[in-house]
Amino acid sequence: MTSTPGGSAGGGYETISFLSDYGHHDEFVGVVHSVIAAIAPRARVVDVTHGIAACDVRAGGLALARAAQYLLPGVVLAVVDPGVGTDRRPVAVEVGGGTSVLVGPDNGLLAPAVALVGGASRAVELASAEYRLDAGAEVGSTFDGRDVFAPAAAHLCCGVPLEALGPAIDPAGLTPGMLPVSRRDGDDLVAEVLWVDRFGNCELNVDPAEVDELVAASGSPRTADSGSLQVAVGEDLRTAERARAYADVPAGRVGLVTDSSGLVSLALPRRSAADELGLHEGAEVRVGIAAADDRPTGGPVVTPVGLSPRPEPQEHGGRADEGGRP
Amino acid sequence: MTSTPGGSAGGGYETISFLSDYGHHDEFVGVVHSVIAAIAPRARVVDVTHGIAACDVRAGGLALARAAQYLLPGVVLAVVDPGVGTDRRPVAVEVGGGTSVLVGPDNGLLAPAVALVGGASRAVELASAEYRLDAGAEVGSTFDGRDVFAPAAAHLCCGVPLEALGPAIDPAGLTPGMLPVSRRDGDDLVAEVLWVDRFGNCELNVDPAEVDELVAASGSPRTADSGSLQVAVGEDLRTAERARAYADVPAGRVGLVTDSSGLVSLALPRRSAADELGLHEGAEVRVGIAAADDRPTGGPVVTPVGLSPRPEPQEHGGRADEGGRP
Amino acid sequence: MTSTPGGSAGGGYETISFLSDYGHHDEFVGVVHSVIAAIAPRARVVDVTHGIAACDVRAGGLALARAAQYLLPGVVLAVVDPGVGTDRRPVAVEVGGGTSVLVGPDNGLLAPAVALVGGASRAVELASAEYRLDAGAEVGSTFDGRDVFAPAAAHLCCGVPLEALGPAIDPAGLTPGMLPVSRRDGDDLVAEVLWVDRFGNCELNVDPAEVDELVAASGSPRTADSGSLQVAVGEDLRTAERARAYADVPAGRVGLVTDSSGLVSLALPRRSAADELGLHEGAEVRVGIAAADDRPTGGPVVTPVGLSPRPEPQEHGGRADEGGRP
Repeated sequence: MTSTPGGSAGGGYETISFLSDYGHHDEFVGVVHSVIAAIAPRARVVDVTHGIAACDVRAGGLALARAAQYLLPGVVLAVVDPGVGTDRRPVAVEVGGGTSVLVGPDNGLLAPAVALVGGASRAVELASAEYRLDAGAEVGSTFDGRDVFAPAAAHLCCGVPLEALGPAIDPAGLTPGMLPVSRRDGDDLVAEVLWVDRFGNCELNVDPAEVDELVAASGSPRTADSGSLQVAVGEDLRTAERARAYADVPAGRVGLVTDSSGLVSLALPRRSAADELGLHEGAEVRVGIAAADDRPTGGPVVTPVGLSPRPEPQEHGGRADEGGRP
Repeated sequence: MTSTPGGSAGGGYETISFLSDYGHHDEFVGVVHSVIAAIAPRARVVDVTHGIAACDVRAGGLALARAAQYLLPGVVLAVVDPGVGTDRRPVAVEVGGGTSVLVGPDNGLLAPAVALVGGASRAVELASAEYRLDAGAEVGSTFDGRDVFAPAAAHLCCGVPLEALGPAIDPAGLTPGMLPVSRRDGDDLVAEVLWVDRFGNCELNVDPAEVDELVAASGSPRTADSGSLQVAVGEDLRTAERARAYADVPAGRVGLVTDSSGLVSLALPRRSAADELGLHEGAEVRVGIAAADDRPTGGPVVTPVGLSPRPEPQEHGGRADEGGRP
Repeated sequence: MTSTPGGSAGGGYETISFLSDYGHHDEFVGVVHSVIAAIAPRARVVDVTHGIAACDVRAGGLALARAAQYLLPGVVLAVVDPGVGTDRRPVAVEVGGGTSVLVGPDNGLLAPAVALVGGASRAVELASAEYRLDAGAEVGSTFDGRDVFAPAAAHLCCGVPLEALGPAIDPAGLTPGMLPVSRRDGDDLVAEVLWVDRFGNCELNVDPAEVDELVAASGSPRTADSGSLQVAVGEDLRTAERARAYADVPAGRVGLVTDSSGLVSLALPRRSAADELGLHEGAEVRVGIAAADDRPTGGPVVTPVGLSPRPEPQEHGGRADEGGRP
């Protein structure tokens, strides 16, 4: 059934893919599921993840972008919403000519995924009271996932047309996401950690081809030596090596592994590269080619490495380019 | 379909809403799902939450009460059960004239939700061996979620009548929940933290109207100044301010936000109020009006605040009043 | 419907029981669900658990074995895969004459469950490219759960026969699991912690009958005294007592409780035995009978207890015996 993408014309959607920073400690996710099932009992809800760090809009946007191409056609419900209850707009954004609709706050969360699938065709602000949940006047405006977003997603599944949910807004006016792009600094590539996964692998905003170019540009005999790569985190300089699998990274080296999103991840076998290197999302990492006299042999060395200031994030979103993502 | 509540007369239920303290580290939740699906393959299971702190019956009861009005009609399976294997009774409690049945241990866990929906109409002890799972004689009695509660919930879905699950018991004899009520102490409101959510917001057992009364009763010119509210946690005194949204709380103030349950929560924008104020569930918080000479300006001040002893919890449950909940 | 196990002959399976070490922090689980639903939209997916410690193949294998007898017939998708991307084989293992098929890496993860249900009848290596997900050449081989295992599981549900997924391999050549067996050392039973659950209960590789034998073999008048049991963790010696329920363990004693798998667990009422005793999975515990002069009275004592070296793990898997499990 899902092989036939249900566009608005076909009368609704079958699936809601649900991502949030609600965690599993509280009943937030369960209440949203209940609200959806009450409105659209036949909709399938796939929990993409609810483990986004609290209020981390960038991390949520990146997770959604990584998952986007694998999600079923239909509705995407995404809620990382530190501005809940303020005048930030709740929106529904149609992509793929109606193949999917993304529902969530207009705070940049949806932008990377929207950009990745080719941009928005239409968008509305979720202003229609009849498609919100009436939780009662005595209840606060702190849970729009329950009161605004889930009802909108569920009603879309039931065939309510996008335009019924509220007034049309210009997709070009949606809040863009902010993603850092890697940059060359002399012989080095200055990158940033986009994502630390639960295994401690650190995804960089670096395409494997950029590492190829780095090696090629070094123009030295060392380029034939795959061990000549190095990564620097602050003053901690490590010998790096490209590897196809986490388990293939040799002892004493940091692996540069092309990950499941097609980006370069720092990785160690069966251990957390993030813990080992003291990395977190947003941290700067320099990737370079070791000079003959500073080639480290593994483990921290004290050679100072000059660090330039952290690069300014570059705007992106709508139809804009998506930074380091291929 | 869910718009037609399936009462016992209608031959079963479509949905099981499942809450527990099982967490996601082990296979407990998955085994319960499997047992349910083997007995009632067409039942929909909604995971309300499994993140209740281990053995924390009060926290589980409060989460269930917060979620109750949003859950689908049908069976509620709730397991926070430190007394598993002892003589505490496994029960099924019918509410709403058969609209829903709550299944779980008789230890106070179900009481707040039962009270909230108007009290129990019938109850039985889950004593019938034929509706338990026969896990074998060599297996211990440490997992009644699998062996007793899930089978009962699933059989109810399949149309087994309540009375078949075991002998009727008097709903008035069910273990009540214990919820603290807030109280006035001079010009102050002495409250307790009911719930710290994953964002660090601290829900108090305080209705917004109680804060209105506090301000009105202060009878001073300061009442016009919304900044004159203050909260005290131990000797830590902070200026507080009512706010509609977490993000609207001004810097240097603690927000008093009416939350999604209609109670007053202490909140900070994008930060954990619990961490900032050192609060945990059950902690005492005093809400008052700042006198001219002790009005803090944000951040901890050293003015000692006299604290009265923690209030005794007040019994409630069955048809009793539900404490601070409106 | 599930009462009729759907064998390959019947054209597919209805259920996928999914266990992994993916956690809930990232979108891994949601992407796998999406991939499955795109291929087999009617398959039911039951999440057994995704809380297995990262890369902990043994813990994953034990969790799967504990859950095995409660899972629905059908496909079991199990992914704890530190060797992803290397030449470790992705496999599908048929058990029960086609009642179920286990899909996962050939690294010992599946072995305990396969052994528990009577061994494998057939097995294949998941080599057929047509039943893998083509994630694109630019994407790494770090997420076989998405690209290899989930598609295989979903295609099995759709009726693709086992043999179409790849070449047959000898089930006897599958990697065995390694489970420690308990052993007698003089009057003591030297055991190992197999599992620490979220409540801190510590399951040992000990059958209750082994404790019976220990008591009987002590042949002293003390055997009538149930308080004469003791457990030693390193030099920490505690008085132990058999109990039917966690809540029945008396103060000052460590409970020996027959758990929901039929093994002996160390437990304390409403507290974590693991925290109290400093135990972790794999730790050694000695269970013995207190001599008159060293019978502890609760709490740590300083009497040194001689410890023999940790026992070598014993191979098992395929049709081999399953260690301490009854």
